[in-house]
Parts: sequence; structure tokens; C-alpha cells
Amino acid sequence: MKKIFIDKIINYDGKQLQPQWIYRNYDLIGDAVVAFIGEANVPLGNMVDIADYKREAFIYSPQMLHFIIEHFNTDLELAVYRQRLFINCIKEELEQKGVTVVRFGDDLYINKRKLNVSIATSSILSTLIHVGINVETKGTPVKTSGLKELGISNLSSFAEKIMFRYTKELQEIYEARCKVRGLNN
Amino acid sequence: MKKIFIDKIINYDGKQLQPQWIYRNYDLIGDAVVAFIGEANVPLGNMVDIADYKREAFIYSPQMLHFIIEHFNTDLELAVYRQRLFINCIKEELEQKGVTVVRFGDDLYINKRKLNVSIATSSILSTLIHVGINVETKGTPVKTSGLKELGISNLSSFAEKIMFRYTKELQEIYEARCKVRGLNN
Amino acid sequence: MKKIFIDKIINYDGKQLQPQWIYRNYDLIGDAVVAFIGEANVPLGNMVDIADYKREAFIYSPQMLHFIIEHFNTDLELAVYRQRLFINCIKEELEQKGVTVVRFGDDLYINKRKLNVSIATSSILSTLIHVGINVETKGTPVKTSGLKELGISNLSSFAEKIMFRYTKELQEIYEARCKVRGLNN
Amino acid sequence: MKKIFIDKIINYDGKQLQPQWIYRNYDLIGDAVVAFIGEANVPLGNMVDIADYKREAFIYSPQMLHFIIEHFNTDLELAVYRQRLFINCIKEELEQKGVTVVRFGDDLYINKRKLNVSIATSSILSTLIHVGINVETKGTPVKTSGLKELGISNLSSFAEKIMFRYTKELQEIYEARCKVRGLNN
Amino acid sequence: MKKIFIDKIINYDGKQLQPQWIYRNYDLIGDAVVAFIGEANVPLGNMVDIADYKREAFIYSPQMLHFIIEHFNTDLELAVYRQRLFINCIKEELEQKGVTVVRFGDDLYINKRKLNVSIATSSILSTLIHVGINVETKGTPVKTSGLKELGISNLSSFAEKIMFRYTKELQEIYEARCKVRGLNN
Amino acid sequence: MKKIFIDKIINYDGKQLQPQWIYRNYDLIGDAVVAFIGEANVPLGNMVDIADYKREAFIYSPQMLHFIIEHFNTDLELAVYRQRLFINCIKEELEQKGVTVVRFGDDLYINKRKLNVSIATSSILSTLIHVGINVETKGTPVKTSGLKELGISNLSSFAEKIMFRYTKELQEIYEARCKVRGLNN
Repeated sequence: MKKIFIDKIINYDGKQLQPQWIYRNYDLIGDAVVAFIGEANVPLGNMVDIADYKREAFIYSPQMLHFIIEHFNTDLELAVYRQRLFINCIKEELEQKGVTVVRFGDDLYINKRKLNVSIATSSILSTLIHVGINVETKGTPVKTSGLKELGISNLSSFAEKIMFRYTKELQEIYEARCKVRGLNN
Repeated sequence: MKKIFIDKIINYDGKQLQPQWIYRNYDLIGDAVVAFIGEANVPLGNMVDIADYKREAFIYSPQMLHFIIEHFNTDLELAVYRQRLFINCIKEELEQKGVTVVRFGDDLYINKRKLNVSIATSSILSTLIHVGINVETKGTPVKTSGLKELGISNLSSFAEKIMFRYTKELQEIYEARCKVRGLNN
Repeated sequence: MKKIFIDKIINYDGKQLQPQWIYRNYDLIGDAVVAFIGEANVPLGNMVDIADYKREAFIYSPQMLHFIIEHFNTDLELAVYRQRLFINCIKEELEQKGVTVVRFGDDLYINKRKLNVSIATSSILSTLIHVGINVETKGTPVKTSGLKELGISNLSSFAEKIMFRYTKELQEIYEARCKVRGLNN
Repeated sequence: MKKIFIDKIINYDGKQLQPQWIYRNYDLIGDAVVAFIGEANVPLGNMVDIADYKREAFIYSPQMLHFIIEHFNTDLELAVYRQRLFINCIKEELEQKGVTVVRFGDDLYINKRKLNVSIATSSILSTLIHVGINVETKGTPVKTSGLKELGISNLSSFAEKIMFRYTKELQEIYEARCKVRGLNN
Repeated sequence: MKKIFIDKIINYDGKQLQPQWIYRNYDLIGDAVVAFIGEANVPLGNMVDIADYKREAFIYSPQMLHFIIEHFNTDLELAVYRQRLFINCIKEELEQKGVTVVRFGDDLYINKRKLNVSIATSSILSTLIHVGINVETKGTPVKTSGLKELGISNLSSFAEKIMFRYTKELQEIYEARCKVRGLNN
Repeated sequence: MKKIFIDKIINYDGKQLQPQWIYRNYDLIGDAVVAFIGEANVPLGNMVDIADYKREAFIYSPQMLHFIIEHFNTDLELAVYRQRLFINCIKEELEQKGVTVVRFGDDLYINKRKLNVSIATSSILSTLIHVGINVETKGTPVKTSGLKELGISNLSSFAEKIMFRYTKELQEIYEARCKVRGLNN
């Protein structure tokens, strides 16, 4: 599992959630997670959440800390579990900074204000996850919270810590399934 | 996903972590989670964690709230993700009661004292998870915390809430993977 | 497994056999079967059966009872078994009404006249099945039988019974695999 | 898929439902179905149906036409579909002989009397199916029908026809999934 | 596994690596390998190897012996193992003719000159492999070797032998996994 | 993928081909390959090759270079492909030393004398491969060749090179499936 923080503004419009977007642009082969900062502005036509599409709930945030995760495994159920785990890594990193966070599914809330957006989907060769955490919140379509008001200003460091937690979890999960005895009938 | 609290003391010695133990004894067919209260005393020969077996780290607790989960799917990787999710349900239920909990893998800690034991493994037909949360802690082999000292005395209610969270998460994960559009190449 | 009879004429032209067509239009999330009545007129370009496409065997029927089934599982082999099972549910519902039916693969015949069309295929996220049973048969490209001549006029009730049989079978199959003991070597 | 009728009395006691019993005894490598004639007398300890075991519903029939099927694929869900398909092959062979048969799950009934027993289960390397069709019915623990009273006396020919139907279905299912176009999103 | 040598010049431009190209054009249903002779000239837009695409390494050879292999199984990892096995079949057929060949991944080298190109990829329903072996080498973009200079002039016979080796290997692999005992814990 | 040469004589009697034998004894967690030197003497009761068991073809060699490989993936078909790949790594390492080797399935021959034994099988949690290469050949039940007569005396270095080739192949196969574009329909 490779990971990098991309030190360049990238505005997220949904086109980044494509198979091998990471490899094509940043030369990381295989399972990887990347982070970057930029606006989020996803037109309806690019949205993969059909529920949001049906109620025309477009995505906008003036500045977000984005993560794109790709696993070369096509099991979408597993990808949704990984998405939940990643969301939990964010929650636990915030908790360590003393921030109280409540999770519902793949959404985090701070004082009932939404901190992030997230989606997981599948292509022919891989599963892909996007998570965007609000930094600033002006103009967002729902009541939101952001990292800025939480006093988290070193975004690359925050991103690195979350990516470290995630890759560590994956390694531990791998080891957990290799150190148990199977059960006969 | 079926769920029941078994209103009867059952001492956990590892033999409960068997395929269809739930069905054989409590007539729930298929994916299920059950909870019960009892001592935990797992002799080395019944342990499925080879790491613990190698360092002879037996399991003992005078009183635990136990959960046995069975999924009729043999993917152990998925089962470990489910185990992490279940552990998180416990953490979040405690957080809602105002208890601060830190998670490392499948272990919860309160003030650096271990709250639970847990394991996930696989049989030919299913994957099985055991989670035991200390209620009382006298005589445990490591420094532990327990639900009693946390002021949680209605154990069946606590168990029901955790099982409700877990089955709700599973339902939401299922729906999450059914409402996204797949990605073409 | 959700199921509804859609009380509205829908002419089937192949575009209904799309991932999440059911969810987008009828708000059923997840595995589902829906039924409706309408003409069948599938242009060659929309056909998914390559064998039919190669011999230019287009599909036409003036009125059919249609079923669209979607399972959020991408195993096409399993989907073909499910298609056979569904075809069998139709056969057995007809038998209960005293109609003698012969099955070859996914086709039903009454006195050597073809009663239905059917196909199963896969998308990135799901498998999809279409079954169309002739109601009227004027203008069909091969010798056909239809529900009208068999005296079955309450089409919605007939559809509901078939969908009930199918979902009951799926439930029983699930339970069947949860109530057996696995075999050691 | 290989198939043979074993021309020798074999009393079925449940031990025949073992991985590679066919290969060990009859030298057929890989997916295979075999048929033989013999008593059925399965002691509770050999039963793999836990539901039957729990209610102590042992299996006995003075003479049965038995089938053992092994597929080197460990997906038990698929095996249960295959079991249903095989049961259907028996039903359709009987229908062709003019016998009216009603199916519930994996059981066939003639005038409300049970014609067969059946089970499907999994081992580490394969899935296994047993089907036993009563020939004579004296002493069976429930009300049963048998092939003898149905006038089917050439048991090997009857068995061959069923095995032929089954292997033909499998071939057609394979071809069905190879001749459809997949669906883009 | 079906196999044919197509006795007709076909210039390979990447469009042949499409799901069911074999079935649409040569009527072989299911897993198959076909061989033909023709130029290779794959424009960048048709290339499926993203690494080659990124460095604009187009494919050209004046005359190649081509193989297209399709397996109706969507596991790309398995497909890459099959590709390696096929490459090895070529190597071993050459060795039997006394030619010394060195393999790196899916490339064969003769005196450090590249003999072939190869790629494996996945569609919704199948995995596909292309292997092209240089016959003549004039104008190839890298230093290459070809069958002509190796004295192999009966290309159809050479192709048949390689396809025979491959299908024989697949049969033996199938039998290998059916004749071992599984291991209990 | 971890790898070690175990610098200690271990006589192979079949009991080493057990799930997590590597982890229990050498503390390598997860996918791993280990090598060691020792006699091979596998009693019939420990043999997992049923074909050999049936013809009572026991295994004996006075000194072998052994490899045990474990992958925490239960797909035996994949494991047999991996076994073939490993056998090929041995062949290619020998070829680099100028030795001419012929492969049939999972057996290598030098001048028509058998160089090795090999088997792949599955447990509930993993697949396991054993390969034994004769060093000395006195007393073997068939005509054999050995590394000693081939002049290969530094067995640990030879083992390390083969294990290096194998782990490198696995890494390349992983990358190969991550750098291709999937195919739409």
C-alpha cells in the first residue's frame, strides 16, 4: 500500500475517481492512497451516488482535504468496509487531538455539522474510494464543519497521519487473518 | 441478521466458537449475533489465536459480556473487517455514554487498561467472531477495565444496543454498495 | 429481496436491462424483482444475446408480462442458475393451474410453442435477468403460446405468485446452506 | 463432468458423502456424478443436515436409487442451486414418463408422498450432493412414494437419463454465460 | 478449451482484444485460444498497457504469429498466471527445437533480443490475453528476434503445438487440484 | 512475501505441510516461503496426493532441498499455477547454470531422470506447496537426478536464488495486473 501527499492544488470534480488515476498521474503502481487539497465541485453528471443524483444533491465545498484510495480488488462490499475503516481513522485522529466526533455510516459530524463527503465504488479492475474533509465551509449546501475552525492548519501533516493509520490498519488486518487457527467441523 | 440476548449464564471456554453453535443451541438459522454473560476461561488447547498460544497468553476474566457472531461467508479478510466494525460499535456506544475509549486493532482501552478480548476465524462454511467485554476484572492476567467500574450495570440493554448498531451498520453497508454507479474504463 | 408489480404499461426495448434501472425508477434498493406489462420490441443493437444478434433474431411480442431481476452479486454463473430457477417458478405456477409445460434451458414450451424469452447478464456491480412471458402472440417471429389463450387473465396476480415463489426459493436456499455441517477431510 | 452408473449394490450410510469418494473408489477425476442402488440407513452421527439431527429425523429406506455428485468448487450457495437443478432433472424425467410430481425445495412429492431425500454440503476442496430416490418404501419413517409403484423398473436406464439431463444442463449454463454481452454503466 | 488456427491474414491493431471477439468471428463458445498471422500495429489509443501508453511505446511488427486467449472468468490475477504459463509453453516448444530462450516476466529473449509482446486484461465477463511472436522483425521499435531467423517456417504447425501444450497444461492443472486431499487444522 | 533458508536439518515426513507450520516454528506471519535440507520420507498416511496414495507410491529421498510455501488465500487453482511458476523458477535457475531441464507439469527431468517431488493443497485458511529437489539420490524409488551430480553444492545459495526469483515473479504479477486498462463492452 503506497501513500503520498500531493503538494499541489487539485480541484475535485469527480473525474479523479477513475481507475488508475493515481498511477497515470503519480506513478504509484497498485494499491495506494493519495491526499491533496482543493475545491470540491462535482456536477450531477459526474456523481456516482445514485441516491444523491436522484435528489439532485450536488457536492460543493470551497476547500477540502481530499483522499483518493484505490485497491486492485473488485469486491465492493469489502471496499465499503475499507471506507468505514478509513472514516474511522479520521475520527480517531481527531479524537487524539481532543475533538469529539460522531459517525453515521461514512459521515462524520461535529456538533451536528457535517465534516465530510465520501463514496466507494467499483470498476472492472479495482475499487475506488473518495473522502473529502471540509477545510473551509463557506457556501456548502448543508450545515458543515471544517478543519480550519477545528484549529487544524497543518493539513499535509494531518493527511499523512490519517494515511499512516489506514495503512497500519490494513497491515494489522492482514496479520490478524494469518495468525488464527481455522476451525474444523 | 438475527440477534438475541441469551438470558442465562454461559461460561466461555472457547467451545462456543464453533460453526453453527448458535443454530444448534438457539435455533437461529443463518447470519446471527448472540450475547450472554459468564466467566471467560479458555484453556490453551482451545485458543485459536496462534500468537497468544505461542506465548501461552491464556484468557481469563471472572465475568464478561460475550458476543458470538457467525456469518455464512468464508472470507476471513471480510470477517476481520466486520470484527473491527463490531469493536467500533462498542466504542461508539460507550462514547455515547460519555466514556472515552481508545482502540488499537480489535482491542479497546480505557485509561490504558484493556476492556476486551476478541478473535475472528473461519470454518469450512462460515466465519466466526468472539468478543468478550470485561464486566468484573479481578484476576485477569493483564491490567483491565470493566463495565462495572464504568457504571454500566444493565448489561442486557447495553448488549442489545451494540447488536442493534452492528446489524444497522451491516444493512447500511449493503445499501451503500447498491446505490452507487459502477465506473467504466 | 424486494418485489413489486408496476401497475403501468412499459414497453420493453432492452434499455430496462440496465444496472439499477429498478432503483432509479422505483426506489427499491438492493436485490429486487419487478414485473410489468407491455410490448416487447428489442432492436438488434440493444440485444445482449450474441447468438441471437449473430443470426439477427430480434425480439417482438405485442404484449408480454415482463420481469426484471437484479442481484448485487457479479457472478454470472450463479445468475444463470437463478434464471433457471425463476423459469422453473413460472413452470410450477402454471402446473398448479393445470397447464402442462416443457422446459428447455431458459425457455418454456406449451404444445411445442414458445411461451417466453429470457436472458441473464452481468454489469460491474450486479447481475440482471429479463424474462418476458407472451400474453398475446400476434406477430411474434416464431410459433408462440401466450397467457391469454391459457386463460390466465389476472396478470398482476399471476406475476405476484411467481415473484413470491422466487423469493421464497431464495430464502430456502439461504437456509439450506446454513443448516448443514461442513465435511472435514 | 463425468458420469457412471455403478453396477453393484452399495448401502448408503452417509460415509459416501465424502470428498473424493468417487475418485478413490471409481477413478473419476474431477467433477462427477455417480449413481448406484442400495439401502439407505444413515445413523444420526453421520447426518450433515443439522435440522434433521436436532429433531432426530434419521434416514431409512429399504431400497433407493442414489446419486453422489461432486464439484471441485467450494461455493455452497452454488451447490444448493445445482442440487435444485438436479432435483428438477428428476422431476422432468418423471414428467416425460407421464408422472405428476410436485417439488418443494429439494423434495419431490407424488400424491403428497415423499419420493426422495437430498442434501448438499461443502468440504475444503469441493461441494457434495447426495440424492436418494425411493425404489421400495417399506419401513420408511414418513409417508413415501417409490419408483417401483410408479412402474419404473429399469433403474440404471432411469439413472443414466437423469445424469444425462444434468450434465447437459451444466453445459448449457456454461454456454449461456459465454454468449451474452456484459453491460457497461 | 477450444482452439483453432485461423488460416487468414489478420492485422492486429488491438481491437481483437475484445470480449467475445473469438465467438463473434469464429463461433467458438467459451474458453478458447486462437492463432493467426499478420502485422502488429497498435495505435496508442488502443493500448491497454498503461505503462507503455505513458511512455508512448507503441507496438509495431511487420509480421507476427498472434494468439488471442479468452477465459470466462474475471480474475485478472489468475489470467496473468495463465499468461506466464502460455509464455512458458512457447519457451518450452522452442527449447524442444533446440533454441535457447530466456524469459523475463511475459517477455522472451533470444540473445538479448525480444521475441514477443504480450498483455493480459479483464472485461466484465472474461479475461483476455494477447501474445504476438515476431516472425519478421524489420522496423520494430526495439531490438528483436523473430521466428524466421530461428528457422521456424511452418507457423501454423508451431502455433498448433503451442496451443496443444497450453490446453494440456490447463487440463493437468485441473486434475492436479482434484486429486489432492485437503488439510484439516 | 517473506522468505528464509532454515539452517538446520529437517527431515520431511509430510507433517511440515500444515497450515501455519512456518509461523508456528519460524515466526514468519503471512505469505512465506522457507527452504531447508533433509531426508524425505513420507509414509502413505501422510500423503496428500491421492493418486500416489492409491498406487502406494511413497516418497523417499536420502537428501533433498525442501521448500514449503504458504499463501493465505484458499484458491487451490491459483495455488497450482503458483506451484508451476515455482517449478519454473527452479528450471530457469538451473538453465542459468547451464543445466538442460525438461518440465512435465510439476516435475523436472534431467536426462529423463526425475529431479523433484511436488504437491499443492488447501486448508481452511491457506494453500500450501511442498517442493523437494533431490540432492543425493541413493535409494529413491524411481530413476532420479540430484543437485550433487549436477555440481550444485552451495545449497543455501541455490535456495535463496530460487526464492528470490519466486518472490520477484509474484511482485511482477501483482504489478502486471495493476498497470492494464480494463475493457468495456
